Amino acid sequence: MTCELVFVGTELLLGDILNTNAQYLSKKLAEIGVNVLHQSVVGDNPERLRDVLETAFSRADLVLTTGGLGPTKDDLTKEVCAAFFEKKLVLHNESLRRMQAYFDEKGVEMPKTNEKQAWMPEDSVIFENRNGTAPGCAMERNGKRLVLLPGPPREMKAMYETGVLPYLQSMTHAVIFSKEIRTFGIGESSMAQCVGDLLDSENPTVAPYAKEGEAMLRVTAKAETKEAAERLLQPVIDEILSRLGGFVYGVDVPNLETAVVALLKEKHLTVATAESCTAGLVAKRLTDVPGASDVFGCGIVSYQNEIKEKLLGVDPATIDAQTAVCEDVAAQMARGVLRQSGADLAVAITGLAGPGKDERGRDPGLAYLALTDGKKTVTRTVHTGQTGPGCRDYNRTVFASHVLDMIRCYFA
Amino acid sequence: MTCELVFVGTELLLGDILNTNAQYLSKKLAEIGVNVLHQSVVGDNPERLRDVLETAFSRADLVLTTGGLGPTKDDLTKEVCAAFFEKKLVLHNESLRRMQAYFDEKGVEMPKTNEKQAWMPEDSVIFENRNGTAPGCAMERNGKRLVLLPGPPREMKAMYETGVLPYLQSMTHAVIFSKEIRTFGIGESSMAQCVGDLLDSENPTVAPYAKEGEAMLRVTAKAETKEAAERLLQPVIDEILSRLGGFVYGVDVPNLETAVVALLKEKHLTVATAESCTAGLVAKRLTDVPGASDVFGCGIVSYQNEIKEKLLGVDPATIDAQTAVCEDVAAQMARGVLRQSGADLAVAITGLAGPGKDERGRDPGLAYLALTDGKKTVTRTVHTGQTGPGCRDYNRTVFASHVLDMIRCYFA
Repeated sequence: MTCELVFVGTELLLGDILNTNAQYLSKKLAEIGVNVLHQSVVGDNPERLRDVLETAFSRADLVLTTGGLGPTKDDLTKEVCAAFFEKKLVLHNESLRRMQAYFDEKGVEMPKTNEKQAWMPEDSVIFENRNGTAPGCAMERNGKRLVLLPGPPREMKAMYETGVLPYLQSMTHAVIFSKEIRTFGIGESSMAQCVGDLLDSENPTVAPYAKEGEAMLRVTAKAETKEAAERLLQPVIDEILSRLGGFVYGVDVPNLETAVVALLKEKHLTVATAESCTAGLVAKRLTDVPGASDVFGCGIVSYQNEIKEKLLGVDPATIDAQTAVCEDVAAQMARGVLRQSGADLAVAITGLAGPGKDERGRDPGLAYLALTDGKKTVTRTVHTGQTGPGCRDYNRTVFASHVLDMIRCYFA
Repeated sequence: MTCELVFVGTELLLGDILNTNAQYLSKKLAEIGVNVLHQSVVGDNPERLRDVLETAFSRADLVLTTGGLGPTKDDLTKEVCAAFFEKKLVLHNESLRRMQAYFDEKGVEMPKTNEKQAWMPEDSVIFENRNGTAPGCAMERNGKRLVLLPGPPREMKAMYETGVLPYLQSMTHAVIFSKEIRTFGIGESSMAQCVGDLLDSENPTVAPYAKEGEAMLRVTAKAETKEAAERLLQPVIDEILSRLGGFVYGVDVPNLETAVVALLKEKHLTVATAESCTAGLVAKRLTDVPGASDVFGCGIVSYQNEIKEKLLGVDPATIDAQTAVCEDVAAQMARGVLRQSGADLAVAITGLAGPGKDERGRDPGLAYLALTDGKKTVTRTVHTGQTGPGCRDYNRTVFASHVLDMIRCYFA
């Protein structure tokens, strides 16, 4: 089954919002073997939306749209799609009732404009919206299917999981199954060169990609069942793991923080953080992982020097001699938060996120990291090489990843 | 000038990566009056890419592509685009030299595969890549223009700013100018109802949108000069500001944290943070703003109760009686970090991010917040209403926004 995604919203064309729906739906559809060959974005314009639907159905059997189901006047997706499939809109009483209940629960009167959201294409399958007011639906005509989803990601995702996924699963046959091999500390080019001969294989396929300081490989097999696909994957994955060795932090692990929290849980150890330039990002990322409280309890953000001295016991003389951005300060910060927290391990970071240079003229992208277990302290120096405008976010993300990677390497 | 964006990459169709380039380019092009009417995503497949270019040029004069300029075998954008415009590829010596220098600086040998990145379409304008190896280019044929940019966002953005923007600016005439009115504490529907009559206006246009607990309005005018566009905007913006009052936290301010850091700077006050469920996110967001060190120096992440007691002086009896998620604990945390930091103000948060219920059976999405200036302490209770799977990220983001909003409201 060939599928096209159509995202409707002038705000997408103006760049007001980031199209996270595209990634979510593409990933979910790949999981059930639905082949997405095109994505299209079009504004809230009836003629252009109609043309995009025409093009989409010329190359796909299934089209999913998001957006344009809201209560305001520029929300036209349902009207245009119903007309395209030659369906009338009829009042769906259950949706109207749910919408009323949604506002009652919030203790807010339902704005009159919302009522239009309960008028749905005739003969369509209706999908309940558990996080908002606009219902979704699926229409069918001459073997082509059109599924309408709301634009706000929380509403769209919940509706996909509870309504659209079961609807689609009844139609698919082949299974596409992928595993992701995630690495830290090796560049995409070097990784690709290391596994170059495997990039030509057809089933499974091996594809490299890179993201914010990390390089990954996606290995994808197509088969009749998930088990058969897994049997195709395993030897290729084993080969890649043996070539990439310690650079690999996990297979099908969503990110470094998840791998690190799992490692700490396995070892029954806790970690504390002392952060200067990342200012809470390491703690935030560790606690993005549900259940992180088993391994993380204490973080100190010491963004100013006085706080480094007062709460972490960093020696003012060290700062005077070497500035706050040096290896010694990182090590003292780590030992300081270890004492304060009573954790088994502590990590610390001090660095220059940018955008400007520091008082000594050093470029941003430089950070000093330390990890201590109370007996020995190890350090790491990071140069991201990013100094331009906009480097701040990137540097902070990569710095935080290196802090997490130090924890991982402690167990290596 | 009508423009279409074409994003090339099977990883986008599989949902491996988020298409942040779409938002960036759309926003940047709108700023210089280039009308983006469609975005298309297509895989690394020469036939389908060719068809997408065909469709794109049937409705646009200018097409920008990102992706597919890498050194690996599946990177085909340049080859397909050059063939589409009937241009040969020729070795661009300066690009090869730059690429060699890029690897020399990193102290890494240039992989042989990279050389193909220096073969560029004949008669094209070459754009230097300051953050990577693949150069970009612009081709022209029969009045149609095709611009190729690399896929990695850091490389793409720097190349856009330094090379593509000056190239495009020489071609545009009308100016589209927008301002964004950002609010906190009012829903999108209520906001839209409050300004409903203005949503019909044509120049400027007024469009509502919503994002993670915030509602915004974008007011956009088209004119011959930026000054003329601003004159069209001002009366509409004034009218909206008078209707939305205290819900507005800024006009053309990128986010709450920027507004809050600016307010604190203006008042010459500092703030400290004590975070439980958001675990560093408030500190991280404050320090996303360059120069935040003037107003923020100390954050304590007390994810476990012992740390709340030890570092923040929270009374264990309060936790025993009411659990750690209650108004009293939030207030004690705020007063605790105020003492520890010596800041002028302190904010604190304790809550349930989810995904699970707490030991008392309370749903996630509940948080208690406090702000103190040492004299009086104010509190806020937040119910996000989000309890489903995947609620954790949303709840943490909205919780952190409320903490920032409390600082804003302190000055109201």
